[in-house]
Amino acid sequence: MFISFEGIDGSGKTTQARLLAETLRGEGREVVLTREPGGSDGAELIRRLLVEGGAERWSAETEILLFNAARRDHLERTIRPALDRGAVVITDRFADSTRVYQGATRGDLTEAVETLHGLMIGIEPDRSFVIDIDPAEGLARGAARGGIEDRFESMGLGFQHKLRDGFADLARAHPGRVRLIDGRGTPDQVASRVRAAL
Amino acid sequence: MFISFEGIDGSGKTTQARLLAETLRGEGREVVLTREPGGSDGAELIRRLLVEGGAERWSAETEILLFNAARRDHLERTIRPALDRGAVVITDRFADSTRVYQGATRGDLTEAVETLHGLMIGIEPDRSFVIDIDPAEGLARGAARGGIEDRFESMGLGFQHKLRDGFADLARAHPGRVRLIDGRGTPDQVASRVRAAL
Repeated sequence: MFISFEGIDGSGKTTQARLLAETLRGEGREVVLTREPGGSDGAELIRRLLVEGGAERWSAETEILLFNAARRDHLERTIRPALDRGAVVITDRFADSTRVYQGATRGDLTEAVETLHGLMIGIEPDRSFVIDIDPAEGLARGAARGGIEDRFESMGLGFQHKLRDGFADLARAHPGRVRLIDGRGTPDQVASRVRAAL
Repeated sequence: MFISFEGIDGSGKTTQARLLAETLRGEGREVVLTREPGGSDGAELIRRLLVEGGAERWSAETEILLFNAARRDHLERTIRPALDRGAVVITDRFADSTRVYQGATRGDLTEAVETLHGLMIGIEPDRSFVIDIDPAEGLARGAARGGIEDRFESMGLGFQHKLRDGFADLARAHPGRVRLIDGRGTPDQVASRVRAAL
């Protein structure tokens, strides 16, 4: 079982990924909780190039290549070995983030993203949960958290609104796999919506 | 005019790129002398991930993505602006290195390399010079040079022989663009062969 959590910055998806991992571990399952960009030694180094620095650091095209490089390493070294031994893999972001952040939002790169995904990755999660919240609230949470991983937050509120629309479009296009989850309320309230959808 | 120098590690191509740049500058031309992986701020950071560390650090597939990410940044920030203002661009390695190092040598990834190149790069040099030398001599030069950028050299002599064959195949497949240059003798002797071929 391969599950991804998706959503705009500050949506609470990281918390939800952790809560679902705890629930499934409580049922006695082996769970590998991981994240993108990152999730393997090499991919974590690529992560730093992607999430730190100024907005103009990379073009959307270069980002697509870097995210796929990180994803390929993550897949080879973490995800595939875990799935092969029967573990549940829960990842905080996967290919849907590239579809939305680079493919649909910063120019019409949807086709390039799909071609590259088919060529170098070729796997989809069994279930993807998009935690949907108001972008202004997401940015406020991100600002409260601080840190230097704010490159995409620095692209502004209009960008976050486009991302939210992009994720909603994805849920409509793939109703079997991608589920939109209302992200309002306490983490436990949201977690019970995720469990119901699972 | 866009010119690349290619060849196995320690072939002397870096010296030849510099000598040709000096010759063309002597004729009053603006020359941008650059290199791959690298040649722009972002691409130089990606370079470190690629040329340092152990042989098993990345799979050939992940490398293809990282080299293309670096190349895309190099193209956007250095090569295209220089060509657009009429400068001659001379690069120490370009896409032929990916064709040979990842595409032809470490598994059958030729098609993936070409698809990715067409999708994200889409430009070829006007002329590519492959400096051809004995792989044992190339490795000896690399060892004498020292430094930490020895990841590909660490893959051994058999690998360097395959690379040499890969570059020769490329010259046969693209006789108009790719020229094989005898790399034996002094740098000035090799440079005069390059000038004759140009």
